[in-house]
Amino acid sequence: MRAVVYDGPRSFAVREVPTPEPTAGQVRVRVVQTGVCGTDLHLHEGRFMAAYPMVPGHEVVGVVDALGDGVDGVEGVAGVAVGELVAVNPNAACGTCEYCREGRALLCDALTGIGSNLPGGFAEHVVAPAAQVFSVEGLDVDTAVLTEPTSCAAHAVDVIAPRHGSTALVIGAGPTGVLLAQLLRGSGASKVTVAAPTAFKLERATALGVDATYLMDRGDLAGDVQALLRRSGGSGYDVVVDATGAAVVAEVLVPLTRSGGTAVFYGVTDEEDRVAVSPYDVFRRELTIKGSFAEISSFPAAIAAMRSGRVRTDGLVTHRFGLDDYGLALEALRSDRTAHKVVVVP
Amino acid sequence: MRAVVYDGPRSFAVREVPTPEPTAGQVRVRVVQTGVCGTDLHLHEGRFMAAYPMVPGHEVVGVVDALGDGVDGVEGVAGVAVGELVAVNPNAACGTCEYCREGRALLCDALTGIGSNLPGGFAEHVVAPAAQVFSVEGLDVDTAVLTEPTSCAAHAVDVIAPRHGSTALVIGAGPTGVLLAQLLRGSGASKVTVAAPTAFKLERATALGVDATYLMDRGDLAGDVQALLRRSGGSGYDVVVDATGAAVVAEVLVPLTRSGGTAVFYGVTDEEDRVAVSPYDVFRRELTIKGSFAEISSFPAAIAAMRSGRVRTDGLVTHRFGLDDYGLALEALRSDRTAHKVVVVP
Amino acid sequence: MRAVVYDGPRSFAVREVPTPEPTAGQVRVRVVQTGVCGTDLHLHEGRFMAAYPMVPGHEVVGVVDALGDGVDGVEGVAGVAVGELVAVNPNAACGTCEYCREGRALLCDALTGIGSNLPGGFAEHVVAPAAQVFSVEGLDVDTAVLTEPTSCAAHAVDVIAPRHGSTALVIGAGPTGVLLAQLLRGSGASKVTVAAPTAFKLERATALGVDATYLMDRGDLAGDVQALLRRSGGSGYDVVVDATGAAVVAEVLVPLTRSGGTAVFYGVTDEEDRVAVSPYDVFRRELTIKGSFAEISSFPAAIAAMRSGRVRTDGLVTHRFGLDDYGLALEALRSDRTAHKVVVVP
Amino acid sequence: MRAVVYDGPRSFAVREVPTPEPTAGQVRVRVVQTGVCGTDLHLHEGRFMAAYPMVPGHEVVGVVDALGDGVDGVEGVAGVAVGELVAVNPNAACGTCEYCREGRALLCDALTGIGSNLPGGFAEHVVAPAAQVFSVEGLDVDTAVLTEPTSCAAHAVDVIAPRHGSTALVIGAGPTGVLLAQLLRGSGASKVTVAAPTAFKLERATALGVDATYLMDRGDLAGDVQALLRRSGGSGYDVVVDATGAAVVAEVLVPLTRSGGTAVFYGVTDEEDRVAVSPYDVFRRELTIKGSFAEISSFPAAIAAMRSGRVRTDGLVTHRFGLDDYGLALEALRSDRTAHKVVVVP
Ligand SMILES: NC(=O)c1ccc[n+]([C@@H]2O[C@H](COP(=O)([O-])OP(=O)(O)OC[C@H]3O[C@@H](n4cnc5c(N)ncnc54)[C@H](OP(=O)(O)O)[C@@H]3O)[C@@H](O)[C@H]2O)c1
Ligand SMILES: NC(=O)c1ccc[n+]([C@@H]2O[C@H](COP(=O)([O-])OP(=O)(O)OC[C@H]3O[C@@H](n4cnc5c(N)ncnc54)[C@H](OP(=O)(O)O)[C@@H]3O)[C@@H](O)[C@H]2O)c1
Ligand SMILES: NC(=O)c1ccc[n+]([C@@H]2O[C@H](COP(=O)([O-])OP(=O)(O)OC[C@H]3O[C@@H](n4cnc5c(N)ncnc54)[C@H](OP(=O)(O)O)[C@@H]3O)[C@@H](O)[C@H]2O)c1
Ligand SMILES: NC(=O)c1ccc[n+]([C@@H]2O[C@H](COP(=O)([O-])OP(=O)(O)OC[C@H]3O[C@@H](n4cnc5c(N)ncnc54)[C@H](OP(=O)(O)O)[C@@H]3O)[C@@H](O)[C@H]2O)c1
Ligand SMILES: [Zn+2]
Ligand SMILES: [Zn+2]
Ligand SMILES: [Zn+2]
Ligand SMILES: [Zn+2]
Repeated sequence: MRAVVYDGPRSFAVREVPTPEPTAGQVRVRVVQTGVCGTDLHLHEGRFMAAYPMVPGHEVVGVVDALGDGVDGVEGVAGVAVGELVAVNPNAACGTCEYCREGRALLCDALTGIGSNLPGGFAEHVVAPAAQVFSVEGLDVDTAVLTEPTSCAAHAVDVIAPRHGSTALVIGAGPTGVLLAQLLRGSGASKVTVAAPTAFKLERATALGVDATYLMDRGDLAGDVQALLRRSGGSGYDVVVDATGAAVVAEVLVPLTRSGGTAVFYGVTDEEDRVAVSPYDVFRRELTIKGSFAEISSFPAAIAAMRSGRVRTDGLVTHRFGLDDYGLALEALRSDRTAHKVVVVP
Repeated sequence: MRAVVYDGPRSFAVREVPTPEPTAGQVRVRVVQTGVCGTDLHLHEGRFMAAYPMVPGHEVVGVVDALGDGVDGVEGVAGVAVGELVAVNPNAACGTCEYCREGRALLCDALTGIGSNLPGGFAEHVVAPAAQVFSVEGLDVDTAVLTEPTSCAAHAVDVIAPRHGSTALVIGAGPTGVLLAQLLRGSGASKVTVAAPTAFKLERATALGVDATYLMDRGDLAGDVQALLRRSGGSGYDVVVDATGAAVVAEVLVPLTRSGGTAVFYGVTDEEDRVAVSPYDVFRRELTIKGSFAEISSFPAAIAAMRSGRVRTDGLVTHRFGLDDYGLALEALRSDRTAHKVVVVP
Repeated sequence: MRAVVYDGPRSFAVREVPTPEPTAGQVRVRVVQTGVCGTDLHLHEGRFMAAYPMVPGHEVVGVVDALGDGVDGVEGVAGVAVGELVAVNPNAACGTCEYCREGRALLCDALTGIGSNLPGGFAEHVVAPAAQVFSVEGLDVDTAVLTEPTSCAAHAVDVIAPRHGSTALVIGAGPTGVLLAQLLRGSGASKVTVAAPTAFKLERATALGVDATYLMDRGDLAGDVQALLRRSGGSGYDVVVDATGAAVVAEVLVPLTRSGGTAVFYGVTDEEDRVAVSPYDVFRRELTIKGSFAEISSFPAAIAAMRSGRVRTDGLVTHRFGLDDYGLALEALRSDRTAHKVVVVP
Repeated sequence: MRAVVYDGPRSFAVREVPTPEPTAGQVRVRVVQTGVCGTDLHLHEGRFMAAYPMVPGHEVVGVVDALGDGVDGVEGVAGVAVGELVAVNPNAACGTCEYCREGRALLCDALTGIGSNLPGGFAEHVVAPAAQVFSVEGLDVDTAVLTEPTSCAAHAVDVIAPRHGSTALVIGAGPTGVLLAQLLRGSGASKVTVAAPTAFKLERATALGVDATYLMDRGDLAGDVQALLRRSGGSGYDVVVDATGAAVVAEVLVPLTRSGGTAVFYGVTDEEDRVAVSPYDVFRRELTIKGSFAEISSFPAAIAAMRSGRVRTDGLVTHRFGLDDYGLALEALRSDRTAHKVVVVP
């Protein structure tokens, strides 16, 4: 089969590799399409969990085309019939580290990731343990391809656990911000505002049901903070999420958070970034600052939200590339201001 | 002013009483309309917190028409300007009992209730502490009159704290069931089903956005349970709520609850009722059974949900009576199968 | 090796069976001693997860004596060195059922249990996945043998999540009640009372640090309830746990629970038992009823509690039998009123 | 009566003022002794909620000596009989601001504080609403004087909600650190370490039951962090609390926190202080940063913990001054390295 293969940072080729065979307990999926996201840019640079030779691609939707031993007999497991449309959860825990033994799989010391340290979905086929393969039959493939990002957002909702009746502000209107805003909307937040600097992304957010939007001015973050505080009625938002990955934005979360509220680092900043926080303010106003990292068991919640319309996706996929154009796909993600969600079709 | 006044159980008259003056810290409200609910039937019978002479009516919407000393200067408190449309939170805690001192006001040993042990809203005017008066400016009065029931439902959502991605089943499609189902829909439940025996109430539920409905057969509860389990996919619902007040229904909550899920006694059964519960089932499947009683600090969440459309109310008010017809209003509530929400206009 | 082997309900023999070899990822443990508990009586009768031929024994402490492939290389995993004293977590989840995929392993549809559907510890050796083997180096073997029951109690504490400053009542002073009472004592409950009908068990509870005890009269449960309510100051206990397994006791939990509090079915009643619950009381006083079943990831918490002295065990083991006397061990558990914890030494 | 009276920042005198009379709902307390704490130093400088003329003193223990109207009849309220030993909760909420109406009294916009914006306990008498007066009959006055600091710590435990089996590190061994460490010990933390630069305070912590201590070197915080990480086994502590109020310490909380854990700003830093936080680290390791401010409804939990011995206080009071020596008391607190808890006796 053909696949995007990295031999090292920034060095990849689209080439022929052996089509993988599913081993015991595994399922093979013929890839329909795979989403590209910021993590793929990081992996391109050799950061994160990159392990070579590497086939990236962790937002996979496809059709089951072969089953490993012991799989077809597993009862009660959806999504293992040959021919079924499925989404693949890339993440799995080791089961034996100190965190796994405490039942906290997402904190696992030795996470495996399809598309980072295991072969991923920018390829014609991918194999995965049956437990990581979920039926998305009945969903449109442009919805289904967003299952993994929606799962991350569903996990963030678990982390945030918004008080019923909260107000929420999501900064960043990429696919991630738009998905998370919708989930917050359906998870107890009574008013969800999305702020970002690009109008068409905010229009998409509005079309998909968020309550309010605010157009930021990249040159005047302080002005944005003032305007957003004013719009909140002066006291800030119960939940404030960075979904940009920009440290300058992460730093303004605390001042935008209402007393007793929660600021969330959801965007992925650089490891070297530092933000200044006032411990007095956190103490005096009893604020909470939290991080939400990926997900490990949120596919069921994400798929349920997509099926019920709590999360809508119409119009989010704006760019589609063939496997051979993987470089162009990365480039679109990096610098095409008209791109929202970019996907690759093998 | 004119008011419904009880001198004892089942003995009331609509008569002239002195118009109340707001004392320090109080607000007087000219009543626009007041909802009638099952509690009023209980009070009619002399149960609950009835204290004579009693003016019932705890679901009040009205217009502020006088302020007691010290009220207009209170900063940051919405809803105290003369002329403002307001809803009145009937419940207040004593502040000094053991529960109040632990910060658990709703468990207060000495709750006061406007419309039960304090004069209520089936009258031309009602007085209330400013802290219990909330602006509902901009809401339709037929929405605003549902603020108190929505607040009870908002509190129930806090009690239930549905896991994100849960399925929920609400049994009972009175105003209460329909409001709670909508709030669960917007609080993390990915699919909400409402079950009840009257088709038009289910149609209203559907119109207001619940995901699914099931028409019960009052003569075959066992059959309903089987059918509802089948619809759940066999393993039940993560959250199952009784919103009927019928003990026979309360008894089937546990078998309808999915492993790890929560059964909620929200309907008000008789004090003498007992339901049979299997402690083994609760243990083996790690179920939770909970009660949710009224509310004390959920008006802000309820009003926010109404403003944002998380809770919709169009068409819920089906019957409207004048003060002089209070007896007819009770009668409609008791036995008119075409009644959904009944309100009284003074 | 020699082992207790059941061929069917009530039909067992102590006989020679092949010593198991650890397969990949497994560890073999030479059993030092294994606790006997009520579950073993249930298994004896053929109930629960019994699967024949069955070697029971799920409270195992022993010494690692062989490692399967791939085990010794696993980094950061305690308890896999040959010669190390270890306790074995009997329970594991399937990883693929609907509950496992939601990250709720304990609700797994297909739990495996060492000592029920996998060969257990009433034998000279037992094998277990490395992930289920925990170092208890430094603990006394009469403490270490209580790791599994302490883990169940640790899970119950997670389920109960006592409000800080709560009062707690544990009914039943078997090993289970005494362990759970100590954990509640160290988990936010400001006063823990243990009630049971046998004085020496209460004296043990006192010696191990519970705050208060109450000697029950098996012939007058109603009198006990009155006396216990009086001792609570009249309003009951914030947390009330059944650790007897008797349905008559389970039924009095709710009346003993303080408003806003939690009643816990921790004892294992018969599947057929039903208790009468007042839905009005649960609603009006906002009670919670919960079940706590076994554990799956609580060994680390249990071992930590034993190491720090939060849980003490001195004097709990009162009876010790050889493997050949397994029948006597069961008999002691069943009817010797002087027995507290019974263990079997192979 | 005599009282410490401030007319402005740093300007106080001990002088005769009218003995206050309790108004309706109030209780007058003859002060036995009042604790001095860092907040009194801040008030001395005119910061915090200082309002002149000001009588400071918010850690009051005394004897009820007069009751206002309506108090003696209040049923079920402990601590209102004349002659009873009581502690006084200084804090009360307004009841009408947006936070109060949401039931979040501690976030109140208009908190009143006895000893800051209301006359406090560095005086012969103090008046307080009955709801703020708690019986401490039976406790030693040197224990009872620590009720308010213990209540703050009890609130912090509610904020932290330690996972059962957690490890905890408290930095700072002033009275506050020592009290909080004990409460964490009794609230699910399986091992609690206290770190501070002064040996005798650590010895006191050990004597009062904390699991481990670490002697810091004020000149080498980086070295302390390394040593503390090593002692944790390398991965840090599940809960890390600053109880020093030093921003340099607050900044090292995050690196000392184990993945999935919680860093707590409990010490009161300067408003101008900023600490550098890595948003990537918070995101990747799913950390939580929280603040805990004072308390409003934690007196019952604190008193219960003191009564049951969960919190012990023997030896904490090291310095005692008369009212006339208030300046010396402040000075001891500020710079006497042998002082642990300082109290003032009128
Ligand atoms: N925690 C998790 O589990 C998780 C999961 C998925 C993604 N993420 C992270 O979430 C972030 C967003 O992902 P995405 O796929 O939605 O990215 P994206 O498509 O690049 O969108 C980023 C959004 O942030 C805005 N933005 C970027 N820098 C900004 C700045 N300095 N000021 C104001 N706005 C700024 C962008 O503005 P424009 O509108 O002008 O483009 C855009 O709206 C990334 O860091 C990603 O790695 C985290
Ligand atoms: N916990 C709280 O805070 C709170 C707050 C408000 C109300 N409540 C309680 O909630 C309950 C519902 O209130 P509501 O105002 O919505 O009442 P309602 O208008 O009388 O509606 C009751 C619903 O339950 C159905 N029902 C009644 N008995 C039934 C039975 N035996 N089998 C099946 N369905 C049955 C009714 O069927 P039909 O469709 O055929 O009429 C109707 O759909 C009452 O008990 C009320 O007191 C509790
Ligand atoms: N949920 C879980 O994860 C879990 C884990 C372990 C055990 N368990 C269950 O917990 C229960 C206790 O276990 P155990 O090993 O401690 O049992 P045990 O040694 O038999 O102790 C039972 C205790 O309950 C008392 N008791 C029994 N029936 C009573 C009655 N009718 N009235 C009053 N007291 C009564 C006993 O009284 P005497 O003092 O007179 O003997 C004894 O104190 C069992 O049902 C067991 O299966 C549950
Ligand atoms: N959040 C709340 O509700 C609340 C309640 C009460 C108090 N507080 C705050 O908690 C903090 C502690 O109160 P306290 O009464 O216990 O104060 P304290 O008696 O002054 O004790 C402070 C402790 O921190 C240590 N310390 C101070 N600066 C340090 C530094 N730079 N490096 C290392 N250790 C340092 C001190 O060291 P030595 O051992 O050398 O003296 C001492 O052990 C204060 O900021 C106070 O305002 C907060
Ligand atoms: Zn792991
Ligand atoms: Zn009260
Ligand atoms: Zn499973
Ligand atoms: Zn307030």
